[in-house]
Amino acid sequence: MLNFEFENRTKIIFGKKVEEQVGALVSANAKKVLLHYGGGSIKKSGLYDRVINSLQEAGVEYVELGGVVANPRVSLVREGIKLCREEQVDFILAVGGGSVIDSAKGIAAGFYYQGDVWELYMREGTFDECLPIGVVLTIPAAGSESSGGSVVTNEDGLWKRDIGSLKLRPVFALLNPELTYTLPNYQTACGISDMLAHVMERYFTRVIKVDLTDRLAEAIMKSVIKQAHIINQSPDDYDARAEIMWAGTLAHNDLVGTGRQGDWASHGIEHELSGIYDIAHGAGLSIVFPAWMKHVYKSDIPRFAQFANRVFDIEINTMNLEETAIKGIEAMESFYGLIGMPTRLSQVNIDETRFNEMANKATNDGTTTMGSFVPLTKADIMAIFELAK
Amino acid sequence: MLNFEFENRTKIIFGKKVEEQVGALVSANAKKVLLHYGGGSIKKSGLYDRVINSLQEAGVEYVELGGVVANPRVSLVREGIKLCREEQVDFILAVGGGSVIDSAKGIAAGFYYQGDVWELYMREGTFDECLPIGVVLTIPAAGSESSGGSVVTNEDGLWKRDIGSLKLRPVFALLNPELTYTLPNYQTACGISDMLAHVMERYFTRVIKVDLTDRLAEAIMKSVIKQAHIINQSPDDYDARAEIMWAGTLAHNDLVGTGRQGDWASHGIEHELSGIYDIAHGAGLSIVFPAWMKHVYKSDIPRFAQFANRVFDIEINTMNLEETAIKGIEAMESFYGLIGMPTRLSQVNIDETRFNEMANKATNDGTTTMGSFVPLTKADIMAIFELAK
Repeated sequence: MLNFEFENRTKIIFGKKVEEQVGALVSANAKKVLLHYGGGSIKKSGLYDRVINSLQEAGVEYVELGGVVANPRVSLVREGIKLCREEQVDFILAVGGGSVIDSAKGIAAGFYYQGDVWELYMREGTFDECLPIGVVLTIPAAGSESSGGSVVTNEDGLWKRDIGSLKLRPVFALLNPELTYTLPNYQTACGISDMLAHVMERYFTRVIKVDLTDRLAEAIMKSVIKQAHIINQSPDDYDARAEIMWAGTLAHNDLVGTGRQGDWASHGIEHELSGIYDIAHGAGLSIVFPAWMKHVYKSDIPRFAQFANRVFDIEINTMNLEETAIKGIEAMESFYGLIGMPTRLSQVNIDETRFNEMANKATNDGTTTMGSFVPLTKADIMAIFELAK
Repeated sequence: MLNFEFENRTKIIFGKKVEEQVGALVSANAKKVLLHYGGGSIKKSGLYDRVINSLQEAGVEYVELGGVVANPRVSLVREGIKLCREEQVDFILAVGGGSVIDSAKGIAAGFYYQGDVWELYMREGTFDECLPIGVVLTIPAAGSESSGGSVVTNEDGLWKRDIGSLKLRPVFALLNPELTYTLPNYQTACGISDMLAHVMERYFTRVIKVDLTDRLAEAIMKSVIKQAHIINQSPDDYDARAEIMWAGTLAHNDLVGTGRQGDWASHGIEHELSGIYDIAHGAGLSIVFPAWMKHVYKSDIPRFAQFANRVFDIEINTMNLEETAIKGIEAMESFYGLIGMPTRLSQVNIDETRFNEMANKATNDGTTTMGSFVPLTKADIMAIFELAK
């Protein structure tokens, strides 16, 4: 087990009607808040009105910035920073899913930064201070509600890059599973794909003797897979929605990464895909992960056999662990199919035209590798794209 | 799943040599610290000197109060409060196990309280403010290093009572598994018993559809049991010690309690035992838990069968779930025996003389019940003592 630090200060308030507490929570932290959200869904659902009412009742002043899209854009982050400075905002309330929260974190990080916020994402600048953030979560997926990470896309060149800092962890996150009843099946499935990927990126490690976090990771994956089947049949099963929502947070609050080194190559490759083609992150991950697994599993067959056995209850063939490992990868791919996620690039209309460009971007023109489970070269990434065609 | 709040602000710094950071961490939080510890073990091991050096190097002033015993006494807590007030201490550093940390929390809670600190433990007073606490952990067991709980014994009447508040969660906890190599086997086993009990108190719930936290709890129990076997053979296996140490924290940081109601009757009964007889808490728990299980399992055989299957890999007899449930209880009892824990009161020289007195204390003279899985009456508690004889 590796040395580690674990600190997660986000206060989680979970359950039915918890969004009603938002005004009181914000007023304890702020005088003037930026209400940040996406398209019209929170207006259609009535959540927008409930949040506004709660803020007004608590006497909190607010300004608004909607319009966050999936794969949130740095242009809107810049607009948010300008607005927050002009309006002397001292708190950001993100109402939405991971894209809205990530966009809010970009604004929070850029608020005190003197240069252009994109420099932070390109590792050309750093920040010490940021605005505090609160969250009303509507999509269980990214885990951004208690993580310190933010992923933003720059339309200029379609770069998708991330920043991470403990300071960016939201102060509070309100999680009401009822708010997720109305999510389209595809969006629910994208979220499930995303949270499973967050666990798998940490599960597939070369650090040995990390039994406890192995088992915690397996617990989350097993539960997510079980609940996904229930939601597939009964989209308004409260308990299944609740398990998925809490799993999405735990998948990415760093708990299952303690004592080990994560891989994150699949996320990196997916960022190139969604950066250029603007596909849903969860869909990109369900395409990349099986291909990545097929490309790398031989380097640690016992770990993949353990995954097959403990996550998918596949019996271990002690005479042929590789067979067990392969069955696990097949089970993962079948699961994606079952919840309606694509597992091939062709399903999202991506062909080989820009494979080379994406592999170059991911490896600084072939000069660096990606990931730690198997450090992937440009050639590896090309091979993974081929497997995913 | 029930609504819940989850907040854990303790910064965990885990791994080899992390205690060297203590001076820097304290100096960031305090000007003058109370160094609180137990008997001579930290002096013998050299840890005391290393902590003092680190504090001195960081320029932190300190006063000392040693002498915390297992089942920490309110008299020393009172002494600590007096000392902290006289010396204008603004931070408490607990170097030790759960008893030292719990004692530190008592001092922290009593520091600003106008009445006698024992009133807080008897629910006759409340506190809003407390001194901040930091921890260098030497015994993985109580989980007190990131919990908000404190259990203290009043020598006058041998009452053992607890307080709990998010404010009592330590600011930081330094966890170096190497510091646990020299623990006597019995103390290691007591710690393992304690952490398993913390998980089981939450696992045995009447709240249904809590799949994710069931699985997380099972993950911790399975890992603890596996690693306990390794430590039994190889007391200085770093990774096994590390898994146990991290498991002890996660067992009691409220994670596995999210969305469900815990029972805590076994803890309550054990507090009566160790309050009067001053036995080790872990030993009391390994005696009470099997008896409690035997007394209550019939009220929820499926849950006990799940426990048997998922924690001890006992095959489920679908024709006779009760048989599976009983095998799980037997496996738990065998495990306690294997790590050298008592499972009968006679093994710690306790006879029936004071059963009635303890059952009265636990139920306010038979007027209240204890626990939620099965609310135990005085008669139930007497029956559990009989089963544990």
